[in-house]
Amino acid sequence: MIIVLKPKTSKKDEAVVLKEIRKLGYRPHVMRGVERTVIGAIGDERTHGTLETLVTFPQVEKVMPVQKRYKLVSREAHKGNSTIRLGNGVVIGGKKVQVMAGPCSVESEKQLLSTAEAVKAAGATVLRGGAFKPRTSPYEFQGLGEKGLKLLAKARRQTGLAIITELLSEDHAEMVAEYADILQIGTRNAQNFQLLIAAAKTGRPVLLKRGLSMKIEEWLLAGEYILANENPNLLFCERGIRTFETYTRNTLDLSTIPIIKKESHCPIVIDPSQGAGRSDLIVSMCKGSIAMGADALLIEVHPNPAEAWSDGQQQVTLEGFAQLMQELKPFLVAAGRE
Amino acid sequence: MIIVLKPKTSKKDEAVVLKEIRKLGYRPHVMRGVERTVIGAIGDERTHGTLETLVTFPQVEKVMPVQKRYKLVSREAHKGNSTIRLGNGVVIGGKKVQVMAGPCSVESEKQLLSTAEAVKAAGATVLRGGAFKPRTSPYEFQGLGEKGLKLLAKARRQTGLAIITELLSEDHAEMVAEYADILQIGTRNAQNFQLLIAAAKTGRPVLLKRGLSMKIEEWLLAGEYILANENPNLLFCERGIRTFETYTRNTLDLSTIPIIKKESHCPIVIDPSQGAGRSDLIVSMCKGSIAMGADALLIEVHPNPAEAWSDGQQQVTLEGFAQLMQELKPFLVAAGRE
Amino acid sequence: MIIVLKPKTSKKDEAVVLKEIRKLGYRPHVMRGVERTVIGAIGDERTHGTLETLVTFPQVEKVMPVQKRYKLVSREAHKGNSTIRLGNGVVIGGKKVQVMAGPCSVESEKQLLSTAEAVKAAGATVLRGGAFKPRTSPYEFQGLGEKGLKLLAKARRQTGLAIITELLSEDHAEMVAEYADILQIGTRNAQNFQLLIAAAKTGRPVLLKRGLSMKIEEWLLAGEYILANENPNLLFCERGIRTFETYTRNTLDLSTIPIIKKESHCPIVIDPSQGAGRSDLIVSMCKGSIAMGADALLIEVHPNPAEAWSDGQQQVTLEGFAQLMQELKPFLVAAGRE
Amino acid sequence: MIIVLKPKTSKKDEAVVLKEIRKLGYRPHVMRGVERTVIGAIGDERTHGTLETLVTFPQVEKVMPVQKRYKLVSREAHKGNSTIRLGNGVVIGGKKVQVMAGPCSVESEKQLLSTAEAVKAAGATVLRGGAFKPRTSPYEFQGLGEKGLKLLAKARRQTGLAIITELLSEDHAEMVAEYADILQIGTRNAQNFQLLIAAAKTGRPVLLKRGLSMKIEEWLLAGEYILANENPNLLFCERGIRTFETYTRNTLDLSTIPIIKKESHCPIVIDPSQGAGRSDLIVSMCKGSIAMGADALLIEVHPNPAEAWSDGQQQVTLEGFAQLMQELKPFLVAAGRE
Repeated sequence: MIIVLKPKTSKKDEAVVLKEIRKLGYRPHVMRGVERTVIGAIGDERTHGTLETLVTFPQVEKVMPVQKRYKLVSREAHKGNSTIRLGNGVVIGGKKVQVMAGPCSVESEKQLLSTAEAVKAAGATVLRGGAFKPRTSPYEFQGLGEKGLKLLAKARRQTGLAIITELLSEDHAEMVAEYADILQIGTRNAQNFQLLIAAAKTGRPVLLKRGLSMKIEEWLLAGEYILANENPNLLFCERGIRTFETYTRNTLDLSTIPIIKKESHCPIVIDPSQGAGRSDLIVSMCKGSIAMGADALLIEVHPNPAEAWSDGQQQVTLEGFAQLMQELKPFLVAAGRE
Repeated sequence: MIIVLKPKTSKKDEAVVLKEIRKLGYRPHVMRGVERTVIGAIGDERTHGTLETLVTFPQVEKVMPVQKRYKLVSREAHKGNSTIRLGNGVVIGGKKVQVMAGPCSVESEKQLLSTAEAVKAAGATVLRGGAFKPRTSPYEFQGLGEKGLKLLAKARRQTGLAIITELLSEDHAEMVAEYADILQIGTRNAQNFQLLIAAAKTGRPVLLKRGLSMKIEEWLLAGEYILANENPNLLFCERGIRTFETYTRNTLDLSTIPIIKKESHCPIVIDPSQGAGRSDLIVSMCKGSIAMGADALLIEVHPNPAEAWSDGQQQVTLEGFAQLMQELKPFLVAAGRE
Repeated sequence: MIIVLKPKTSKKDEAVVLKEIRKLGYRPHVMRGVERTVIGAIGDERTHGTLETLVTFPQVEKVMPVQKRYKLVSREAHKGNSTIRLGNGVVIGGKKVQVMAGPCSVESEKQLLSTAEAVKAAGATVLRGGAFKPRTSPYEFQGLGEKGLKLLAKARRQTGLAIITELLSEDHAEMVAEYADILQIGTRNAQNFQLLIAAAKTGRPVLLKRGLSMKIEEWLLAGEYILANENPNLLFCERGIRTFETYTRNTLDLSTIPIIKKESHCPIVIDPSQGAGRSDLIVSMCKGSIAMGADALLIEVHPNPAEAWSDGQQQVTLEGFAQLMQELKPFLVAAGRE
Repeated sequence: MIIVLKPKTSKKDEAVVLKEIRKLGYRPHVMRGVERTVIGAIGDERTHGTLETLVTFPQVEKVMPVQKRYKLVSREAHKGNSTIRLGNGVVIGGKKVQVMAGPCSVESEKQLLSTAEAVKAAGATVLRGGAFKPRTSPYEFQGLGEKGLKLLAKARRQTGLAIITELLSEDHAEMVAEYADILQIGTRNAQNFQLLIAAAKTGRPVLLKRGLSMKIEEWLLAGEYILANENPNLLFCERGIRTFETYTRNTLDLSTIPIIKKESHCPIVIDPSQGAGRSDLIVSMCKGSIAMGADALLIEVHPNPAEAWSDGQQQVTLEGFAQLMQELKPFLVAAGRE
């Protein structure tokens, strides 16, 4: 930690700060600058108590942390890229870019199976579909619940696709883990730490969506909750952040691809459907994602978006999805991926 | 719903949209404008399926909702101001502005009881204190758990203060409700709908903090989850939103006071400690809150902020709190409050 | 400046950084921490070249500035509160809270003079009114230009009110300064540094609105352009920042009142009309502003808002303004102001 | 315009609104819904007075615009893609993706010419370099001024590269236009409408950077100022928007590429240097930009970033740039560009 004192702080007031630093377990190191005195507090910031509280002393101008706060998810902890192997043999984080596709919500057997067949035929390897849906209003469709999970399991048996579905209650963790190959943590639960711990403990791979207004550091630290609870299979998923812009539902932050690659060893997945909130931008966003190094895509696909029970405006049709997969091929080649 | 068609849409393409509107349960009403045709879709937007999905038709330019989505929390549903009566007889939402004060985290019996005595002496009527703490990093202090709840109960017995404490797991709902007079839902769980439902079902008053990047409408709808689960005792709590500014930890949006008063009948509480993230702005923010009509304040107070186990930088001292309470008096008079 | 090296940086790589620090005019001071080495670079950050460029060295993890970048506007430069005396004897920044009121745009002699008489009668001391209007679309009303300025001058003669009006072109600086007592710099020009310099050079007091997405530090530095160009008469004006919220046009950040008072000696003015973008929140925002210590208010008033040529939705009526001024009185008393 | 009345508005109050709508030049059309009455106001929203002011009537709940506000920049106004031909024959907006590269600031003849030679050799066709620099602090390097322009002209003579440089004062418009092939309008001046008009009137192509917190619609409308002032040669340039994230300097919004292509006929340019504010993310961002359909890139390149006089942290080295250009080739092929 670096503690900056206000200009003209007396020796006596400085001594008070030095004493407190020692009391809190750090070794102080004083540097006298042109205008201000700066104190370096030496010690492991992640294991000692924080020194940020020192700003409550009137003679302290600011306190600046030096260390990164995340450990296990960091690139320093694991030099190579982590890969995640699913039940059907699919590997995420390797040379092949995986596509996870399917409806926003599981609505019926026919809707789900027709979509599953179509996305499989077009090249997807994981089927997405929400059985429990977090909805802004209590009057909106909340998902089919376990019935939806059973339909997902049936689709897996029929197509061989792996399954990703959202977990939104600690109480459902075991049940959802029984049916799903990957547990998705949604953007509104990205800092619901109890849910993160419950998800980690199932042992299933966890896809952690970035919170609506989550800084990169906070996202990495939320991921740290998964690894610190002894589950090494974590995927980060960027799905757009909340900004002032209203043309798109969210602002998809594609710079997270090189950033997560730089800071972490875990795979990075892009969800352009939530990012755009409108289907007409999705092809372009997928091309950009692949060019920038994404490990997987998560795309909402529906046989009839105009009649979808949730988020129809951002779902692409079965035909649209098949064409999208074709259009991505040259970019996979350019990126040296499959 | 208002559906705006693109300029030069053919009659045939228009007919497709009209047919779909009828199919989804609405009655269409066509208006031909100078450049564009606009269709009013008549029906209750909250009970029918959404028409927002119609933007997936290429001939549709945009879809605009007409109705407000919240019902039970709305001022239209209840003309008067709702009041909430706590176990110790304290009423929130009435003429008296209530002050809830106490440490960020419960750390020890001595810390909690000394704070409780001091805030009571200064005029607070509710004691705050976190027993379960949601922390950005898994390596930070996570709270004393039930032991902290027991200390809060002891403080209540000794001082007569009511207790507010955070609920952060569905699994703890019953336990926390046993000890607390008000359940606090934190900003990171503001759209954790399962937790909202669990909190509502305890029957205890629920204080719902605004999410870090929650629009007013979303906040009202999250509150709707409480009332729709048959718990009428909801308090909205503004605690600052996330913006680009870094001088303060968050940007306290005091305009929520007149807005909540206009849109809802539920009380509005202001938390300046989280809003500022630094103790030196709190007095001013409290004055503004009272002048603008807040029903209660939620303030972090600690006997020794520099050694607090969490968020010391935003906690005021016992003396600071006593002085703050004095400084607020003239503003209570000006606002016609007590 | 504090330069943080990456963990396990070799002595050789460290030496490269030390050499560059010396070359750029600073004296390096090395601190070896538990994991990382930190270098304090001693020298005046405001006069030497910046060291932030050092992050381009691969062995550098981050560079953190220690000093504040503003000087003349800072509280350190001038312990007391600066006051600004206008032509009509009105003093801003003293014990009396001044109210600046008038229409968004000057539209006609009748509209302006009736408004001027009414706001004066209600207690305003400065008349606002736009003659040159910055409009989002080129097809919107752009203001009456010099004709509008002449009407403002006439209103001043008739009422004794001082005049504030916006400057939006360097080329108009002399002309506008001839008519105005205070030059207003609008939010979209808050970092139009050439305009700031031109405004400063007229010698007239300058009211600097905060930019839509301007950090406090950037705002203070923009103000520094005024004082550094030898004009000591600067007023900061908060008018709301751009956030994700859409209920209000902008998010009025009232915490700027104690912040500007802490960091600077210049007066702080609040513009609730722009902040809210809707007239129904203005009374409450004005009460909060006074309670929190604002030196002046800037309020849009129009005889018939529904027919205003610009921003009618945020203008209050003449009667509404008179009532507002009455309602503020108890808060002025509470705040120890007049 | 759509005017939504509050529930239970009386016929008399409705009549008041209808009368005002007619008075303001629109034809009202009433639709009675389940809960609310909605009035469609028929007329050209871009030429009549606005009806948004009607929200000042207490019986009006909201007013929603139907039409898009921009005309000349819109895709509807011009079906094909506009192309812009520079003095050296380079065409922007055609099949070839153009690269504009050079230092943040022009510092010296040697720095500029060595950079120009290197970027030309690597494949750039336009040289960027700031002669007038808008700086957050008045104490930072403000650019070489006309001397810098002369150096740019010299570099053009020696290399054949076209020149892009920033215009930041109306008073410099003619002078800068004499030297530059493209005038750049910076992010802080993106709604400095007087500067936009002055730039348009020079007849030079204008590159309009998106403002720090500019909505897409506002950006298009700022562009409308160029075309409405009879200059058809407009380039939109995305350079990152301001969000809560602090890892990057700004958040580069690559979704603007498909959005501008959809809404407008003008070319879209991406500036990853400002977007990232750090050089290590630039290669990835350039790949994404090309995959998503950008017409040109604007990249900061410096012979020695650690000693740059401005923004060194985001400038790439000459070698870095040459390598970047190589790495982009497969993505150009994949995108069907050159």
